[in-house]
Amino acid sequence: MKIAWIGLGAMGSKMAPRLLAAGHTVVAFDVRAEAMDEFVKLGGQRAASAAEAARGADVVWLMVVSGDQARSVVFDHGVADAIKAPAMVVAACTQPPAQAQQLAKDLAARGIGFLDAPVSGGTKGAAAGSLSIMVGGDPQLTARIRPLLDAMAGRVFQVGDQPGMGSTAKMVNQLLCGVHIAAAAEAMHVAERAGIPLAVMHEIVSVSAGNSWMWGDRGPRMMQANPEVTSAVDIFVKDLGIVLSQGERMKAGLPLAAAARQMFLAASGLGHGAADDSQVIRAYRALNGAHAANDS
Amino acid sequence: MKIAWIGLGAMGSKMAPRLLAAGHTVVAFDVRAEAMDEFVKLGGQRAASAAEAARGADVVWLMVVSGDQARSVVFDHGVADAIKAPAMVVAACTQPPAQAQQLAKDLAARGIGFLDAPVSGGTKGAAAGSLSIMVGGDPQLTARIRPLLDAMAGRVFQVGDQPGMGSTAKMVNQLLCGVHIAAAAEAMHVAERAGIPLAVMHEIVSVSAGNSWMWGDRGPRMMQANPEVTSAVDIFVKDLGIVLSQGERMKAGLPLAAAARQMFLAASGLGHGAADDSQVIRAYRALNGAHAANDS
Repeated sequence: MKIAWIGLGAMGSKMAPRLLAAGHTVVAFDVRAEAMDEFVKLGGQRAASAAEAARGADVVWLMVVSGDQARSVVFDHGVADAIKAPAMVVAACTQPPAQAQQLAKDLAARGIGFLDAPVSGGTKGAAAGSLSIMVGGDPQLTARIRPLLDAMAGRVFQVGDQPGMGSTAKMVNQLLCGVHIAAAAEAMHVAERAGIPLAVMHEIVSVSAGNSWMWGDRGPRMMQANPEVTSAVDIFVKDLGIVLSQGERMKAGLPLAAAARQMFLAASGLGHGAADDSQVIRAYRALNGAHAANDS
Repeated sequence: MKIAWIGLGAMGSKMAPRLLAAGHTVVAFDVRAEAMDEFVKLGGQRAASAAEAARGADVVWLMVVSGDQARSVVFDHGVADAIKAPAMVVAACTQPPAQAQQLAKDLAARGIGFLDAPVSGGTKGAAAGSLSIMVGGDPQLTARIRPLLDAMAGRVFQVGDQPGMGSTAKMVNQLLCGVHIAAAAEAMHVAERAGIPLAVMHEIVSVSAGNSWMWGDRGPRMMQANPEVTSAVDIFVKDLGIVLSQGERMKAGLPLAAAARQMFLAASGLGHGAADDSQVIRAYRALNGAHAANDS
């Protein structure tokens, strides 16, 4: 199988080499020459443009940073014109479900198959081949790229048979991530207002039914004044924005996602948009005061 | 140490025998004679009233169902008159922090020490002696009952040196529990509206950063039409009500707890107050429609 790989960023530069290791021919394009140099050292091939990479490919894998970029690569940079059925396109970037659906529709008009296949598991999972990949679209297309998925993922979920459903599943997970971070901040804030040492509070919840993955990961960073930025407040302003836009398309009220987004938005408005997302707790402090208050 | 044990319900009937096993003298009172019969079989002593149990006790342990009951036992049923310093009272029931503080204050006026020590871990943890106990109050009092705590708990947290702080810590955990159940319902509801099979959605989140203890426990029950009731919708109407009352005493806005409570309240208003708390998802279905809608 000949694969055109577009995007050798933090994730793509770890994922594409796994396809080489599995014996596939991979022709890559990235705007950064260094990234391509590295990939060529590992046995990959270099293309001068996205269109050149795509020419004659069986699968075009888009590992770019957004749905806007995916669309631009396909229609503004010649990929759509460079491929012919039965070639197919896989968009593995994180994007709004509606954007994936539009891309699918416009490719279908040219007879080109499409899957959306957002990933989770971060750069560690990418390097280890243990990503979770959430696939939306025709299961027959999924079957065709199964060897590629298996080379890169620990878990492959066929979420549904419509393009965009992979992105919807990822969005549902992001809804929970965003609400859980804000809820952790709300809980930590009550504890600090009540004079409870935060390390004690963190330990209690960690062994209790109130625990969450985010409590374990972001909770300790809420106790730091200026933690390292692993993901910024503004990322959740954006991601919960995508959740609420999709909710609006579905005509579905999502009160917790909406309330959580207001807190990230407020934190951003207070000047903390580039801070670690754990610092949404600063919005609570601004709202309610940072003082300890056993004033009940 | 002579211990007066008030309340042999689901939790108390499992906890008190662990004190017997550790060699303590325990005189119990419960309004249900069968519960006392059981306890006597295990080597415990029976009292005819709470006051009789308390007479001559070093520690009065209140394992009743609410702060109202705890107060009533102490002041309306003669316990306060039956004990003298350095005897002390431990309220292990779940109650609003302010109620624990008031009880502490009224006992202090009589020279009687007080700790609030709510527990978590359920009846399984009670039977195994692996409960978590969150203690608020003078650490010297905690030291005095350390052998009792160790006989019943896997983890003892000295949350703070003021009575009520144990209850505050438990309340913070309940805030997270309530918000996480409602968030799980919101996420499941988006998935079902989008036509994603809920079992697939559940598995994806379970291996992702959106995971929570409640997602693991309540999520599967959200997929059932009439799951067994492990804890009712109305319990979280009450518990999140306690959270918001305490927030009001602190003058702290808690937007996620408030939004979550509205959903439990709506579920209750729809007639589902006695249903399993996972059924808060019915409020989302009422709000947004239960139909699958890939209408984006």
